[in-house]
Amino acid sequence: MRAWRTVDWVEGTVRLIDQTRLPEELVVLDLAEVEAVAEAIRSMRVRGAPAIGVTAALGMALAARAAAAAPDRDAFLACLEAAAARLKETRPTAVNLFWAIDRTVAAARESPQTDPAALAARVEAEATSLLEADIAINRALGRHGAALLPEAATVLTHCNTGSLATVGYGTALGVIRAAVEMGKKLQVVVDETRPRLQGMKLTAWELLRDGIPATLIADNMAGWLMRQGKIDAVVVGADRIAANGDTANKIGTYATAVLARAHGLPFYVAAPVSTIDLALPTGEAIPIEERSPEEVTHITAGERRVRLAPEGVQVYNPAFDVTPAELITALVTERGVAQPPNRETILRLVGHQP
Amino acid sequence: MRAWRTVDWVEGTVRLIDQTRLPEELVVLDLAEVEAVAEAIRSMRVRGAPAIGVTAALGMALAARAAAAAPDRDAFLACLEAAAARLKETRPTAVNLFWAIDRTVAAARESPQTDPAALAARVEAEATSLLEADIAINRALGRHGAALLPEAATVLTHCNTGSLATVGYGTALGVIRAAVEMGKKLQVVVDETRPRLQGMKLTAWELLRDGIPATLIADNMAGWLMRQGKIDAVVVGADRIAANGDTANKIGTYATAVLARAHGLPFYVAAPVSTIDLALPTGEAIPIEERSPEEVTHITAGERRVRLAPEGVQVYNPAFDVTPAELITALVTERGVAQPPNRETILRLVGHQP
Repeated sequence: MRAWRTVDWVEGTVRLIDQTRLPEELVVLDLAEVEAVAEAIRSMRVRGAPAIGVTAALGMALAARAAAAAPDRDAFLACLEAAAARLKETRPTAVNLFWAIDRTVAAARESPQTDPAALAARVEAEATSLLEADIAINRALGRHGAALLPEAATVLTHCNTGSLATVGYGTALGVIRAAVEMGKKLQVVVDETRPRLQGMKLTAWELLRDGIPATLIADNMAGWLMRQGKIDAVVVGADRIAANGDTANKIGTYATAVLARAHGLPFYVAAPVSTIDLALPTGEAIPIEERSPEEVTHITAGERRVRLAPEGVQVYNPAFDVTPAELITALVTERGVAQPPNRETILRLVGHQP
Repeated sequence: MRAWRTVDWVEGTVRLIDQTRLPEELVVLDLAEVEAVAEAIRSMRVRGAPAIGVTAALGMALAARAAAAAPDRDAFLACLEAAAARLKETRPTAVNLFWAIDRTVAAARESPQTDPAALAARVEAEATSLLEADIAINRALGRHGAALLPEAATVLTHCNTGSLATVGYGTALGVIRAAVEMGKKLQVVVDETRPRLQGMKLTAWELLRDGIPATLIADNMAGWLMRQGKIDAVVVGADRIAANGDTANKIGTYATAVLARAHGLPFYVAAPVSTIDLALPTGEAIPIEERSPEEVTHITAGERRVRLAPEGVQVYNPAFDVTPAELITALVTERGVAQPPNRETILRLVGHQP
C-alpha cells in the first residue's frame, strides 16, 4: 500500500485532501474535470507551491484524456493549450504551477506521435512522473537541509511547507523531518500564519501527527522569542526564487528574515529547483497575488465563516512577499545547497539541469 | 451633555463599554461591585493601560463607598487595602493599574480625616480626578506627538491605543487624532494585533467612526509595507516604561520596532507619565503576562467562540513584549517629548512631577 499523499492520481482522477477543511475534518476530493482542479487551486483546497505544481500537471492529464478523442494532433494540442491557459490563471505567484504545466505541454509538443490517444498517454506519463518525483526530491532536499541544523535546536517555521504543501514529506518541514530522522533533537515553533492560518491549521496538525514537539505562536511573537534567545534557526519554503536568490514566499516571510538577521540567526529557504525562475533576474518582477479582503476580515473554521472586523474597513491582503537574497543564509534544494544564494551559486545548482 | 467615554462614573457605579463585544455590539456595563470591576479588567472587557488605571481607581471608589460603613479609620483602610490587593492581581504588566490604585489608597492614608464616610468621599474624589484628567492628558500628549509627524504621512499603529484604551481620545491614536485636527493628511495602517485582534476590532472601528482613512493588515504584513516604502512612521502606546525608556507594550511591538529600525523609520511611543515606572531601571524586570492558549487556538466573534487549531497543540501566548529604548525614536507624554528616551530625558519629564 502506498503511503498517504496530499495529491494523487487514482484511476484517472485527481485525488486531493481538501485543506480548507483541516484540521476539523479530513475530506478527500476526487476531481475528474480540469475546471474542478482549477477551482481547487484558486480556492486553496490545495496549496503550497510544489503541491500546486503537481496538481496542475495532473489537471493537464485530465485535459489530455478528454482531448484524446480529438480528430488530430493539432486539435489535441489546441485543447491542451486551452487547459494550460485556464490552469495558469488560478494563482500568479508560485512558479512551480507554470513550470509543471509547461512540462506537460512540452511532453506532447516534443513527442513525434500524431495520434491524440498516444499524445494523451505521453502527457499523463509526464504528469505522473512529476507526482512520483516529488517525495524523492523532498527527501533529498531534507537531507541537505538537515545537515545545516545543529544537533539540538529550536527551529521557527512559517506557513505550511509539509506533506500538505507537497505530494508528501515537505520542503522546509522536510528539512525538519529529515533532521528528526537523523536523531537531531528539534523543537519547532510554528507561526500561525495569518490570514489563512496554514501554520496553525496545517503545520501544527502535521507535527502533532508525527510526534515532533511543536509550539504554536501568533506571527507577531516570533521577534520576541528571538530576542529571548528561544529560536536557533528559521526554515521556510518558497513560491518563486529569482536567479539572484530573491525569494517570494508566504506573506510574513520577509519580516521574519529581517528579524532573524537582526538577531544573528540563520535563515534557510528550502525548495525544489523547479521553484527557481531563471527568467527573473531579481525578485522585483515577481507578481504578488493580492487576495480577498475577507481572508483578513472573516475567519473560517470548517464550514463556518464569521466576520471579525467592522463593516466598511479597507484591507490590504498581499498573499506573498519577497525576501532579498542577502537576508537568506542558504537556499536548500534537492541538488544541494546554495550558500549564500546568489547568481553564481544558484546557476551551479541549476546548471546541471538536463 | 458629556462626550462619550469608554469608562465613566455615573451615580456611584462604574460604567464601561464591554470591549469584548465590539465591533458587533455596543454593550454598556454598569458595575457596582469591586469584584465585577476585577472581572472586567481580567477578562479584558476594559483594556488599554490608561483605561485600566482609571477603571481600577473607580473600583477603589466603589470599595470606599462600601467601606464607608466601617466602624473606624483602621477598619476602613483595611477594607480599602483588601480591595486594592484584589484589583492589583488582575493584570501584571500595565503599571497604570498599580499607580492608580496606589493614588487612591494614598489619598485616604494622607487624609487627616477619621470618619470613614469622609475618607470614602476623599477616595472617590481622587478616583474621579484621575477620570477627569485622562482626556486632558491625552489631548496634551496628542499635540506633542502630532508635531513630530510630517504634513502628509502614512502611520502604522499596533493594538488599540484610542478612546477605547483610555477614558477618551487615546494615546498613540490621540497623536493621530491631534495630527488630523491640525490639518495633517494622515493615512493609518492598522495591525490587526493577534491574538485578540484589538487593532481589527477596536482601532479600525474607532477610525471608521472618526472618518480617518485606515487600512487593516495582518501583523505579518507590516514589514512588507515598510519594504515597499508604504509606511512613514510608527506610533504605539505603552503598558509600562522603565526608567531608561525600555517599553512594555502589546506583543508584536518589539518586532515592529526592529522592522522600523531596519527600514530607517521613526518609531514613537505615546503614553502618559503615569506609565513610567522609575522603580525599574530597565525593561528586564517588567513582568510579562502570559494569557490562555485559547486566545490563540480559538477565535471569538461577539458571543461565538470557534476552535481553529488542532486539539492538543502547545501554545506560547505572551500578552506583551519589551522594546529596548534604543529602538524608540521618541517617547511622547503629556509633559513633552523625551527624544531619544533615556534616563536623563525621562527624568527631565517626570522630574517636575509634584
